[in-house]
Amino acid sequence: MIPDILAERYASAQMKEIWSVEGKILIERELWIAVMKAQRELGLDIPASAIKSYEKVKNIIRVEEINKREKVTRHDVKARIEEFCGLAGCEHIHKGMTSRDLTESVEQLQVFRALGVIKLKAAAALVKFAEISKLHASTVLAARTHNVIAQLTTFGKRMAMFGEDMLRAAQNLDELIETYPARGLKGAVGTQLDQLTLFNGDAKKAKALDEKIMSHLGIKKSFGCTGQVYPRSLDFETVAALYQLGAGGSSFAKTLRIMAGHELASEGFAKGQTGSSAMPHKMNSRSCERLNGFHVILRGFMEMGASLAGDQWNEGDVSCSVVRRVMLPGAFYAIDGLLETLLTILNQMCVNDAVIRAEAQKYMPFLLTTTVMMSAVKKGMGREDAHEVIKEHAVAVANDLRAGLIAVNDLLERLAADARMPLDAAELAAILKKSQSETGMAKPQVDDFCKRVKAYVKNCPEAASYAPAPIL
Amino acid sequence: MIPDILAERYASAQMKEIWSVEGKILIERELWIAVMKAQRELGLDIPASAIKSYEKVKNIIRVEEINKREKVTRHDVKARIEEFCGLAGCEHIHKGMTSRDLTESVEQLQVFRALGVIKLKAAAALVKFAEISKLHASTVLAARTHNVIAQLTTFGKRMAMFGEDMLRAAQNLDELIETYPARGLKGAVGTQLDQLTLFNGDAKKAKALDEKIMSHLGIKKSFGCTGQVYPRSLDFETVAALYQLGAGGSSFAKTLRIMAGHELASEGFAKGQTGSSAMPHKMNSRSCERLNGFHVILRGFMEMGASLAGDQWNEGDVSCSVVRRVMLPGAFYAIDGLLETLLTILNQMCVNDAVIRAEAQKYMPFLLTTTVMMSAVKKGMGREDAHEVIKEHAVAVANDLRAGLIAVNDLLERLAADARMPLDAAELAAILKKSQSETGMAKPQVDDFCKRVKAYVKNCPEAASYAPAPIL
Amino acid sequence: MIPDILAERYASAQMKEIWSVEGKILIERELWIAVMKAQRELGLDIPASAIKSYEKVKNIIRVEEINKREKVTRHDVKARIEEFCGLAGCEHIHKGMTSRDLTESVEQLQVFRALGVIKLKAAAALVKFAEISKLHASTVLAARTHNVIAQLTTFGKRMAMFGEDMLRAAQNLDELIETYPARGLKGAVGTQLDQLTLFNGDAKKAKALDEKIMSHLGIKKSFGCTGQVYPRSLDFETVAALYQLGAGGSSFAKTLRIMAGHELASEGFAKGQTGSSAMPHKMNSRSCERLNGFHVILRGFMEMGASLAGDQWNEGDVSCSVVRRVMLPGAFYAIDGLLETLLTILNQMCVNDAVIRAEAQKYMPFLLTTTVMMSAVKKGMGREDAHEVIKEHAVAVANDLRAGLIAVNDLLERLAADARMPLDAAELAAILKKSQSETGMAKPQVDDFCKRVKAYVKNCPEAASYAPAPIL
Amino acid sequence: MIPDILAERYASAQMKEIWSVEGKILIERELWIAVMKAQRELGLDIPASAIKSYEKVKNIIRVEEINKREKVTRHDVKARIEEFCGLAGCEHIHKGMTSRDLTESVEQLQVFRALGVIKLKAAAALVKFAEISKLHASTVLAARTHNVIAQLTTFGKRMAMFGEDMLRAAQNLDELIETYPARGLKGAVGTQLDQLTLFNGDAKKAKALDEKIMSHLGIKKSFGCTGQVYPRSLDFETVAALYQLGAGGSSFAKTLRIMAGHELASEGFAKGQTGSSAMPHKMNSRSCERLNGFHVILRGFMEMGASLAGDQWNEGDVSCSVVRRVMLPGAFYAIDGLLETLLTILNQMCVNDAVIRAEAQKYMPFLLTTTVMMSAVKKGMGREDAHEVIKEHAVAVANDLRAGLIAVNDLLERLAADARMPLDAAELAAILKKSQSETGMAKPQVDDFCKRVKAYVKNCPEAASYAPAPIL
Repeated sequence: MIPDILAERYASAQMKEIWSVEGKILIERELWIAVMKAQRELGLDIPASAIKSYEKVKNIIRVEEINKREKVTRHDVKARIEEFCGLAGCEHIHKGMTSRDLTESVEQLQVFRALGVIKLKAAAALVKFAEISKLHASTVLAARTHNVIAQLTTFGKRMAMFGEDMLRAAQNLDELIETYPARGLKGAVGTQLDQLTLFNGDAKKAKALDEKIMSHLGIKKSFGCTGQVYPRSLDFETVAALYQLGAGGSSFAKTLRIMAGHELASEGFAKGQTGSSAMPHKMNSRSCERLNGFHVILRGFMEMGASLAGDQWNEGDVSCSVVRRVMLPGAFYAIDGLLETLLTILNQMCVNDAVIRAEAQKYMPFLLTTTVMMSAVKKGMGREDAHEVIKEHAVAVANDLRAGLIAVNDLLERLAADARMPLDAAELAAILKKSQSETGMAKPQVDDFCKRVKAYVKNCPEAASYAPAPIL
Repeated sequence: MIPDILAERYASAQMKEIWSVEGKILIERELWIAVMKAQRELGLDIPASAIKSYEKVKNIIRVEEINKREKVTRHDVKARIEEFCGLAGCEHIHKGMTSRDLTESVEQLQVFRALGVIKLKAAAALVKFAEISKLHASTVLAARTHNVIAQLTTFGKRMAMFGEDMLRAAQNLDELIETYPARGLKGAVGTQLDQLTLFNGDAKKAKALDEKIMSHLGIKKSFGCTGQVYPRSLDFETVAALYQLGAGGSSFAKTLRIMAGHELASEGFAKGQTGSSAMPHKMNSRSCERLNGFHVILRGFMEMGASLAGDQWNEGDVSCSVVRRVMLPGAFYAIDGLLETLLTILNQMCVNDAVIRAEAQKYMPFLLTTTVMMSAVKKGMGREDAHEVIKEHAVAVANDLRAGLIAVNDLLERLAADARMPLDAAELAAILKKSQSETGMAKPQVDDFCKRVKAYVKNCPEAASYAPAPIL
Repeated sequence: MIPDILAERYASAQMKEIWSVEGKILIERELWIAVMKAQRELGLDIPASAIKSYEKVKNIIRVEEINKREKVTRHDVKARIEEFCGLAGCEHIHKGMTSRDLTESVEQLQVFRALGVIKLKAAAALVKFAEISKLHASTVLAARTHNVIAQLTTFGKRMAMFGEDMLRAAQNLDELIETYPARGLKGAVGTQLDQLTLFNGDAKKAKALDEKIMSHLGIKKSFGCTGQVYPRSLDFETVAALYQLGAGGSSFAKTLRIMAGHELASEGFAKGQTGSSAMPHKMNSRSCERLNGFHVILRGFMEMGASLAGDQWNEGDVSCSVVRRVMLPGAFYAIDGLLETLLTILNQMCVNDAVIRAEAQKYMPFLLTTTVMMSAVKKGMGREDAHEVIKEHAVAVANDLRAGLIAVNDLLERLAADARMPLDAAELAAILKKSQSETGMAKPQVDDFCKRVKAYVKNCPEAASYAPAPIL
Repeated sequence: MIPDILAERYASAQMKEIWSVEGKILIERELWIAVMKAQRELGLDIPASAIKSYEKVKNIIRVEEINKREKVTRHDVKARIEEFCGLAGCEHIHKGMTSRDLTESVEQLQVFRALGVIKLKAAAALVKFAEISKLHASTVLAARTHNVIAQLTTFGKRMAMFGEDMLRAAQNLDELIETYPARGLKGAVGTQLDQLTLFNGDAKKAKALDEKIMSHLGIKKSFGCTGQVYPRSLDFETVAALYQLGAGGSSFAKTLRIMAGHELASEGFAKGQTGSSAMPHKMNSRSCERLNGFHVILRGFMEMGASLAGDQWNEGDVSCSVVRRVMLPGAFYAIDGLLETLLTILNQMCVNDAVIRAEAQKYMPFLLTTTVMMSAVKKGMGREDAHEVIKEHAVAVANDLRAGLIAVNDLLERLAADARMPLDAAELAAILKKSQSETGMAKPQVDDFCKRVKAYVKNCPEAASYAPAPIL
């Protein structure tokens, strides 16, 4: 059999269980039983013994048999009804239900539970981002914009920045979980006619049935008006939320790959690991690269979701059916793999303080140009004039360094020697001394981030102790 | 000059104003002035007369001059600084600011205001969906699934179903507006170093400045930790929310195009309108088709946004710059055009009651097969047996009708004549009589939808009276 | 184990074999053996007995063992090297090779073979389109534009139109197969250094080795300059070609779904098939819907490919690795399923001539308005004037029909009675009589299409007899 | 007026002219005149004087007037017909034509001409890639895979690698231009009925007309069977080809951004340019970043095209209309801007030989590990054993360097001292000496690339001298 590569190589056991064929059939059978019980309670003539017959066989899940039946009926739900009835020896399930009453409810439940799994891992990653931010809150780092040395920051602040991206997405995920609306038993075209007919037109009973089932699902909100299916824009919304959730980690992984190129940090390298079968010295950022790959995959699944939103004909069609079979589990496996990988990297990463320090020292005069400019402005120089003079010297120094004409960055000396600058060598030396550990509000920003993460994970206490499974 | 086709052909004046070059420059200058005032209040040496000089010239917006300057500096913000300072005759703006302090704030303000415009139109469309739902709450319609006749519903319910899709998206839009976080003045790499330096390291003053500016922007939330830029996943989130917002209208438009093919309804046809220059009789669903086109365009812009999320290097790069220049206004023009078109269709559409009635009559025996099956089950027949017998006859009747062998649907007669069925002709006739106006819970569902729309638009009272501008 | 849903439910045995884990390992081992043989032939000290040891065990494929090894090495190729060497009891494979020499070659071979499978099925579908076009070359049909009755065409012409879309894409596919470039053994960074070293710097031998391997692969073209990997834009090109290939069938399926809504045609309905578990009468276009779903899925995989193109860092990274593991087989399963489904529909579809005739008759006066207008112009009326008058009456007739005010389309009577029209009742009746079977160049166009299909499939004689496997 | 930002800021004059409103109207009018002339030649009663009247006014293009007319007719083609007829004072254009006969032909002509413009610039970029490859064919560079030092290559080879990516795409572009099929005058539903009617059913004349028009267009191939429109998969194919064309340049730009971070090379920095308004020292890779941005934009437009392929209803609808208005010019502006930017970068880039040399020296022992391993294997050591020993020492050396424990890479010393290695210090020193300028087949690969580029640009001699316009 061809395995699902995402599920089998990268997803966690928990996530696989939710989407496995057997797991899904069990959820489905439990739903059928819940409906029968509710119908019986509401007065329908379903023998208690029949319900028992179904309950007795609900765990006998013969996927091959069901597949054989589908080959005949060409209708998947019909095949599963026949199998379950065949096992139980009676015909009482699925009364007043249409296929979609069943499948929509089962699939929404899968999505809902999968969102819960993801929420936990997102929270765990945020805890980790906060921890590392705090640990490196004072590790002065040469920040880069346009991948070029800019000003000083701290490594902790850089981590908090990526965590911030994720925190926003995690809050959106919570909102999605909180407001996720179920379709419920709305019948073939959404009018609940069939349940109403079963109950001889008693609207109260139809409503009561719907509520009993919602309570079985454990989902709080519901769509009032649907057709055969719930709006597929909800599936898009769900996968788009997962894509956003992966963004912070993805930016972090790209940055760690760039940092590894400068040996400033690395994702770690386990005993026995091989970087390259040809080049024994290599320690590659393979997990970071994979994480970026997961984000790309997630995007592909999101595209599938985007194709479904706004493409509903009348009360519904099933051109979405095969798409959702692929997209929904696929997207959850991908974000699951992404988060497991992210947690592994956050647990194992190495920060090379010595290299970070050396880099900052090398570029220090450049890193302070803003401060030098500000100081010149305070001494009365026009902002644009100061900018021009500093740029002139900085570009010349950079070019001389790159050409090997000088070995040490002498920008401050050149500025001191320039009559246009209102700052002398002593003043510039003072700026250098004072500024080389000045990282603005980086520290209080990190503190604030940690505080907000702590607040966020309050309703998810297991997050702090969640450990990812070993990855390939 | 090449006009922006979306803006010029389809977007509203209100939306164009937000994104026009001149409008943006004005917002930018007002921000600079606000910063100078705040800096002065906090003790910085900026002469009141200088501020006045800037204020006096802020409306002199010479786009061509700025473009010329940019050709020299190759830096757009620098060009605009020079132009403004040149006009004012002094150099006091942009102190302690980096380009992104300016452009991020200006662009977020544009997005924020544009979201407000869209919110109003979404609310107006929901009001319209509710009105039409109510008006046609009793118009019995043959619902279709798989584009094939299924069961009865009402036209009002069908409209409420599309409205429901949009209502969910509109609620998400509200949440986005409510929690939209600003970046604020965070400096070149996010540490607020430059403002801190300006204020001699006084963190309280730096914080006070940030708060004064946030209050100028009118945005309530802010990102605590950013780099040079705010996380681009927020842009993705924004455009994805717009895409979802367009989904309900897009499904509605596709369905109306299908209904027009059956002459059940049409988008209306104005005096003087031409359907086809070659075929004078044609009344095309051109506005519906265009609406679907806008949704496709929106998706393309969303893709651009998706490419930015999770692709941030270090403290930020500007590979996103040209993308956001195109994507942000483009996405808002597209959703603006989509909603204006939707409102126009909702205002002008024709519902052909006679055709709707005739269609339902033609297919009535098919439309009742679920009810017949349910009744047979109640009389003791096994569900799957009943299904099989009815299917056998229904397929035969359909084939005979299609082949022209019979002229009238005689399914009920055939069923009555079949010994396997526990229902006789009289019982079947009774079902037909009773059922042909039974549309389940369609009516109370519509009422409930209208109630929820009413609640939604409470904080947006102008929605009810909003009238779209005439469209091309 | 979680099965790959696309592979297991929808793909053909042939396609699954290409992408199965075991199949891939076998291809890989055969490549290693081919390399050893070539190296030995070129003078490298590899004992013939060692090669035999490898050959003896090449079919012993223990996936679980390999997975275990990967958990230790964290490097998939290393794991497979160790397993193969372990089985053979020596260490001679993979000499002078880097992982990518192996995996790129294996994966390109998989793609190349899969393209061949798809080519056959595309050709088979084209043969079928041509057959049906010919069969229905004279079935007069009311063509629709904007989903509204336009002019007459034939059903055969409509089929040829969708076939034409596919024919263009199939020709592009051929071009891709013809020019598909292999990477070959280019070494760790593309310089072929390692093979050169093995051969003591003998460039001729290194080149000879590369050529021997290319001939083993059976691919004619190769990339001259690559890094560690070939440009991922080739993967995008491949999947984009598959997406384009699915477009004609996808448009056909959408149109058949719309036609089924009018009962003009259907995809067929097999004995024992169930349209709906709740509504026994239903005969749904489920295969057409599924086909459209496959196209959406293909698009999602294309997105993944698009993310890889233009995102290569230096001589290559492996952020693409996990993506290609998912995307390449996924895309081929999806197009495989799409084509199998398309072939099934083309084999089983029903065309309801009686319904098609009835529809054309009902709208005949409208269908002739262009001809009426042309005739009026020939009699001297201004084109725009004629257009206006006809439109006025046509719209009125349509409205009266829709309102049930008239039962029969009396457009020609109304035009005859209008003094502005230069055509009298007799002339209009003559137009009606003459024109109702006039379908322009539809017939010769179909002939021409069939001729071009015949030419296309000349190099693929098995196409005509290819029969799809039964689908679910 | 809101300008099209892509057109006005980034596209070339040549490209803008093709897509301008006025340019399009002129092409359209010339087509109408060509049709009238052909129709007259084929015997239709169109006075020569009328044709002259149209010719006289064809350059009077009043966009505002046309817009006003469209507001009334709500049909853009009708509006332009009326305007042209109004100017000419007669009604003879557009006979036997439907809107799409006109607009499809005009738009295909725009696309076809724009492809020609792009082809030239792609060829120019390839010439440039070849030049730089040749110039730096011997500049030894430490190649990187996974962004980590791997083996030696040359800077010329790296450039050729990106050029190779583009060369494949350029060849595909040529194929597209060569086989681009026109729709021609196929009438309202593709049957050519209207032209046939005009010529009283004379199929030869209808065919002759079509051929005369094709020759006017200058496009060699045509679609045989279309509906109202040509298959939109052709638009997707076109934009996908442009996206692929941008991939090589995009990977190059990303790599240059990474190289700039190491100061190995830069995109150049013009006099007067400002890297950052806040940090005067900055020399950012802004053009490279912008280039990457253009590729993202192109992808968004490709998405719009992907949404159209496979979504045709019946003989065609116009849900694609607004999309194509935005997508087609947008995609061409984006690739035009991308190529202009690429050419600018290739013209101005700086390669810092001294820095490149220093980097290679620093990592030399690591860069040679493959060679060391190969040499050990030749002396009888098992490949996997050699790999393990080298990895052990290499990882230790790297860790010591990063921790600042050692200052110079002493890997070779450590290996020489390890009894397991069959190579002594002298042998290792010899490898170091011999290997540090060995770059495998890099040189002949570059030569081969240059040769193939030369062959490619043979049919495009202007490419070599094409100079991009100055960019912002």
